[in-house]
Amino acid sequence: MTTNDHNTNQPALYHKVAAKIERLIQQETYRAGERLPSIRTLSRQLRVGINTVAEAYRWLEDAHIVEAKPQSGYFVSRRRKVLRPSLAEDRVRLTANVVRWNDSQLQVMQNVADPRLAPLGRGAPGSEMLPAEKLSRMLAAQSRYFSSDCVSYAASMGVERLRKQIAKRSLDSGCSLAPEQIIITSGCVEAVTLALHAICRAGDTVAVESPVYYTFLNSLQWMGLKVLEIPASPEDGMNIDLLRYAVERGIVQTCLLISNFNNPLGSLMSEENKRDLVRVLAEHDVPLIEDDVYGELGFGRMRPPAYQAFDEKGLVLYCSSFSKTLAPGYRVGWIAPGRFQEKVLALKSLFNLSTATPTQLAIAEFLARGGYDRHLRSVRRVYRDHMSHMQDCVARCFPKETRTTHPEGGYFLWVEMPPDVDALRLYEESLRAGISIAPGTLFTLSDRFTNCLRLNCSLWSDAVEKAVETVGRLASKLQADA
Amino acid sequence: MTTNDHNTNQPALYHKVAAKIERLIQQETYRAGERLPSIRTLSRQLRVGINTVAEAYRWLEDAHIVEAKPQSGYFVSRRRKVLRPSLAEDRVRLTANVVRWNDSQLQVMQNVADPRLAPLGRGAPGSEMLPAEKLSRMLAAQSRYFSSDCVSYAASMGVERLRKQIAKRSLDSGCSLAPEQIIITSGCVEAVTLALHAICRAGDTVAVESPVYYTFLNSLQWMGLKVLEIPASPEDGMNIDLLRYAVERGIVQTCLLISNFNNPLGSLMSEENKRDLVRVLAEHDVPLIEDDVYGELGFGRMRPPAYQAFDEKGLVLYCSSFSKTLAPGYRVGWIAPGRFQEKVLALKSLFNLSTATPTQLAIAEFLARGGYDRHLRSVRRVYRDHMSHMQDCVARCFPKETRTTHPEGGYFLWVEMPPDVDALRLYEESLRAGISIAPGTLFTLSDRFTNCLRLNCSLWSDAVEKAVETVGRLASKLQADA
Repeated sequence: MTTNDHNTNQPALYHKVAAKIERLIQQETYRAGERLPSIRTLSRQLRVGINTVAEAYRWLEDAHIVEAKPQSGYFVSRRRKVLRPSLAEDRVRLTANVVRWNDSQLQVMQNVADPRLAPLGRGAPGSEMLPAEKLSRMLAAQSRYFSSDCVSYAASMGVERLRKQIAKRSLDSGCSLAPEQIIITSGCVEAVTLALHAICRAGDTVAVESPVYYTFLNSLQWMGLKVLEIPASPEDGMNIDLLRYAVERGIVQTCLLISNFNNPLGSLMSEENKRDLVRVLAEHDVPLIEDDVYGELGFGRMRPPAYQAFDEKGLVLYCSSFSKTLAPGYRVGWIAPGRFQEKVLALKSLFNLSTATPTQLAIAEFLARGGYDRHLRSVRRVYRDHMSHMQDCVARCFPKETRTTHPEGGYFLWVEMPPDVDALRLYEESLRAGISIAPGTLFTLSDRFTNCLRLNCSLWSDAVEKAVETVGRLASKLQADA
Repeated sequence: MTTNDHNTNQPALYHKVAAKIERLIQQETYRAGERLPSIRTLSRQLRVGINTVAEAYRWLEDAHIVEAKPQSGYFVSRRRKVLRPSLAEDRVRLTANVVRWNDSQLQVMQNVADPRLAPLGRGAPGSEMLPAEKLSRMLAAQSRYFSSDCVSYAASMGVERLRKQIAKRSLDSGCSLAPEQIIITSGCVEAVTLALHAICRAGDTVAVESPVYYTFLNSLQWMGLKVLEIPASPEDGMNIDLLRYAVERGIVQTCLLISNFNNPLGSLMSEENKRDLVRVLAEHDVPLIEDDVYGELGFGRMRPPAYQAFDEKGLVLYCSSFSKTLAPGYRVGWIAPGRFQEKVLALKSLFNLSTATPTQLAIAEFLARGGYDRHLRSVRRVYRDHMSHMQDCVARCFPKETRTTHPEGGYFLWVEMPPDVDALRLYEESLRAGISIAPGTLFTLSDRFTNCLRLNCSLWSDAVEKAVETVGRLASKLQADA
């Protein structure tokens, strides 16, 4: 949650209040089950109206962060054990590693996305959550109106109408991009790939969060790049002190991270820390590749800022897409590469000339008509509810000491089971039961996260619930056998 | 022209006869203006029916290769000076070069494609030649029928329906691919890029034809690869003896070429030579990246075979697309990577996960309904006519000693002006007149082709004719000034 409000059309005050209350809970000023200040007290303390505080509490209640008890007021929810940073970070050795994934690891990656399995391990959003019909209508209409434009090559930059729409939206994330600073790509993966090719040389070291999105590791392996895993917390993302330590010693040539509600931790770095991180990198001219594909999926009403919002040297290459929100199959993403604009554009042109025209036009139209914002408003609510169901279900079915993250957006839940539960064995048992989960070992080159897993919460149904229950039962069995 | 006939539905005998007559003309057994054997004589000599020979002559007349004179028979056309291999190849030094293009060369490349200029220099086909309306209808229908499939991620391999259609068509080019051997890419440029990334290491040397498609040089530069230019003839493509020389000495790690009606020469290697070239490479385990984007655009009725048709070791990576025939803006191409299948698929997945789904479905439907073959039949005739108009116009308007190629397919005409006409200056003068041409220097790292240029013949109109006349006049002026 952030107190940054770029979109002045939307009521925000109650949300700032909610953020403050939530921080008190996160810092354990108020612990699970404890009674929170009354509406009246908070109204006085924070100098806001009674209605604003009441609305803030209602929001927190919806998010299952607090519970209301009739005639007694609000209490910190007991239902959930929130995952706190548990890393003994002083013991972490900062060593750049060459990625050497073996076939069995690649096999795990493939199985995680197998469409025949119950999709708890999958990275993509459930297709039921995508506005398929509406987009198809846009695509049909656009391809007819502009049939000649559709068949012809688009400029390598991409369709101007779409770049204008993206530029307008960039204000929400604290940037103010011009259409000319944006290059359309075939999804965010391509944006990140272009960024890496534009700025890295073989042998360079790239700093990433740990745990890290496994596709990044795979990409870095293919490019002959070394990886420095910097521990990240589920609440505030990458440890900036450790990053500073590495950057100051010249160990790191590039930094690559997912900015908001990241994969797999769901973390959201505070505005102050984002500013700080950008400054640390800028002081040593280290470029930052920012992947912000989940930025629009915050459960709050405000969109958190991008790292690029704090960039004064053109060192941040901002990458995003519509794949997590609208249509992965349309393959439309973009990059705003800052000072690397020319190089990235040349590479885009060499890689595949340009991105397909019709899908760009369809998404531009969807954005221009306001369909995107309507869709986001509804999907954020739904993901928040699904996340909550998933957290409850894990609390109910997994071994007793299991803890989960408490993301404020996105659709990934990170689960830390007791240390004696081997997530890779759990993955194998689940696979046999027709269920995919993403074991924690997939998200690191180190020997950490052996008892962790990532769950996809984009969908919720009886079948999904059953699948989670099954995995929980299997985990308990593994623990008993251990 | 080829005597290979994979498509037994179509009459082919007359075409074989025409090919034989044309070869006699190419070998100058019969020279310009000379009388050719009578229909009756040829019928006896070649042991085919009178009607077949008559039809062959009509075809050659249509192609402006022969002229009919009433009561006198057929004569070799005087109208055209065909470009013959003029390279003193024994003087060619086989040296691998690092590409170091400067900004002015990159600027030329950009200007060549500038849509505000008369498009004589452009590489893309004229959009008027593309079945925009029909494809848009397919896209609209498919995106509605399969709206959920469209928004979801496709497999990295691509949509199965499209891969099946491509597999069926592969018989026409002498290959017999299974759908599982084909990976859909975002255009042929991406296919070639994936192939290069899969098989080359920085510092490797790639053999290409000379003159060579300039985008290849640009790609190889970015990848840190060295280029060995092997002289090619407008009639039979790459000089195999020189390639053999280089391969036997271990100078070459990869070979990259456009197989049929190539860019810029429009050459077509004979079947025997194709077989020979593949054998030479196979003997030394050198992979061949084959770009066959113009293969469907032959003026004859038969589709020439691909190099991959002669590949027994899985060393040919076959790349093609629908960008030159249907819709560059759809960005749909493919690669059949032979033994490099697994590596190319992994790279495709890492570069951009998969190609957009809706455009794949639209093209699959267009192919399944037979629309592609109908379109090709019509467009081949049109390109043949446009090519002929362009050749006539160049013969009429350019300096006297100007010679042109005589392509049997595609839409590029290569023009060799007298040695004292500087094509780069002609390009600059043309630019000032609002016309783009592609100067020969763009197609080599050597100092050759300074008096050559490539013309795009996909469109023909009064405006195009005027533009060619203007360039011809400018060329004559440059010669007079020299």
